[in-house]
Amino acid sequence: MAILFMSTHAGDAEDYLPLLKGHLPDQDIRVWPDAVGDPADIEIAVIAVPAPGVLAGLPNLKAVLSLWAGVDSLLGDPTFPRHIPLARMVDPLLGVDMTHFAIHWVLHFHRGLHRYAALQGRAEWHPVAYPEAAERRVGIMGLGVLGSDAALKLASLGFAVAGWDALAKSLAGVETFAGAGRLSDFLKRTEILVVLLPLTPETRGIVNAETLAALPRGAFLISLARGGHIIEADLLAALDSGHLSMALLDAFRHEPLKADHPFWHHPKVIVTPHVASHTTPRTAAAEIAVDVRRLLSGGMPRHLVDVTRGY
Amino acid sequence: MAILFMSTHAGDAEDYLPLLKGHLPDQDIRVWPDAVGDPADIEIAVIAVPAPGVLAGLPNLKAVLSLWAGVDSLLGDPTFPRHIPLARMVDPLLGVDMTHFAIHWVLHFHRGLHRYAALQGRAEWHPVAYPEAAERRVGIMGLGVLGSDAALKLASLGFAVAGWDALAKSLAGVETFAGAGRLSDFLKRTEILVVLLPLTPETRGIVNAETLAALPRGAFLISLARGGHIIEADLLAALDSGHLSMALLDAFRHEPLKADHPFWHHPKVIVTPHVASHTTPRTAAAEIAVDVRRLLSGGMPRHLVDVTRGY
Repeated sequence: MAILFMSTHAGDAEDYLPLLKGHLPDQDIRVWPDAVGDPADIEIAVIAVPAPGVLAGLPNLKAVLSLWAGVDSLLGDPTFPRHIPLARMVDPLLGVDMTHFAIHWVLHFHRGLHRYAALQGRAEWHPVAYPEAAERRVGIMGLGVLGSDAALKLASLGFAVAGWDALAKSLAGVETFAGAGRLSDFLKRTEILVVLLPLTPETRGIVNAETLAALPRGAFLISLARGGHIIEADLLAALDSGHLSMALLDAFRHEPLKADHPFWHHPKVIVTPHVASHTTPRTAAAEIAVDVRRLLSGGMPRHLVDVTRGY
Repeated sequence: MAILFMSTHAGDAEDYLPLLKGHLPDQDIRVWPDAVGDPADIEIAVIAVPAPGVLAGLPNLKAVLSLWAGVDSLLGDPTFPRHIPLARMVDPLLGVDMTHFAIHWVLHFHRGLHRYAALQGRAEWHPVAYPEAAERRVGIMGLGVLGSDAALKLASLGFAVAGWDALAKSLAGVETFAGAGRLSDFLKRTEILVVLLPLTPETRGIVNAETLAALPRGAFLISLARGGHIIEADLLAALDSGHLSMALLDAFRHEPLKADHPFWHHPKVIVTPHVASHTTPRTAAAEIAVDVRRLLSGGMPRHLVDVTRGY
């Protein structure tokens, strides 16, 4: 029995291996690609940024533990062994940082703070008006662990918060909308839209001409999860027409975003380089160790993915 | 018995008079300067932006109710009748907006978000590293109504928050420092300093070469209360030397900030035009009406200022 660590991202193995060995000193932990050894030995795979096809070549694999909260790139590999239990990362610090990022940009747009840099450049003293927070309608798309935390914290800051999810959810102080049939009602009341959905066949391209048109004129978009949620041409059209005021985009279809991509220089787009949150090796390695021990004692990892749903 | 409304700020009377008359329909409310009538009639003065000398000319004045949280401009008038009860505004919405503004700029500097605009301009994909929130030491100077609320909310977002006040205070989850003797210890541990002090003879110029030098190298300043707290030349020197990373300034000695002031074009200064918070006429008029009714029934207004302390 051996554990395989795989990431195509330089530095991940250096970050994680000492931590994992510290938590699991008796385990045989091997690092892809150079130290896999006999593939038949591998029973648990710990994956950060996967290389396609690798997992399909492990005949005795019993579980896959993702170091990322989103497993869309794993499931996007057609050779991925979908019958094997797959768990995603629920890192407590990931939620702290994601909620911070969401709060920052909601406050930024709520208070018109995106307008002061240009005013400062012209030495213009010009306060920007804003509504009372209790009348500012913020909407969170996706009420999983991350979306729920952001929704609750934004509600506690006094905003009028609603959330939409494919499944029915209940959150104190948050108006919730469930399922495709309620999406349009949710969007109609939302002035600041925060996208925190998983990327699945159902949510791919969900930010498109039709859904953007359902938002009230002058709305703001904060996209924090995956670039695949957005139909880029539709977003640019909504910004150019003035229907959408501004967009903060942190995730993109292809990363790093290419230097000639129109998002970089669009006056109504703020680009951040996928920094809304990240898995923290210290806490994530501890979470992985918990699930490895559960597997070793015959149990299952905690945050199992429903591969038919994709999250 | 009459109530005088005074503001030198255009539009205040139009905002407040209908609201005050709505709350106090039986009262004789007069507006400075055109409708004062017999000064001997005036027993209560409701003041937004004062004109010096006016209150000293009211022989039967029994109370002054400030529409502003800060009463430094009232007390800065040497003719102000300091023996008459003076109450300051504690508007619940003022605290909501101020805390929002403080949270926004703490998150902004914590996550290095001030660096992304320049990177975007060069189409550079370059994540900025940041410490865990629990290790980020935020310090609030001034633990009054506004400072305490900001400190508690920032602590609930996971930051390591401390507060300093002239008087001893106790706040759950916040390390507190009291008095001039502890100021240097407070500053030494503070990476992001938020100034929410009243402006008094003791706090005037409190952000100076000595206190800035006590902050750790690379610290951030967020000045939200009064421009008079800051020795401007000392602040610019600390920014230019690199000791201070950035400053967000919302309040200035002379407002509007003059077009040739060096703050406008300093690369390490973000200027906002006194928008951290503002008194909301709807809620503030209701607060004033409560205190007027207390006075009419022989009581005292609620938030009395200690004129020897200045707040």
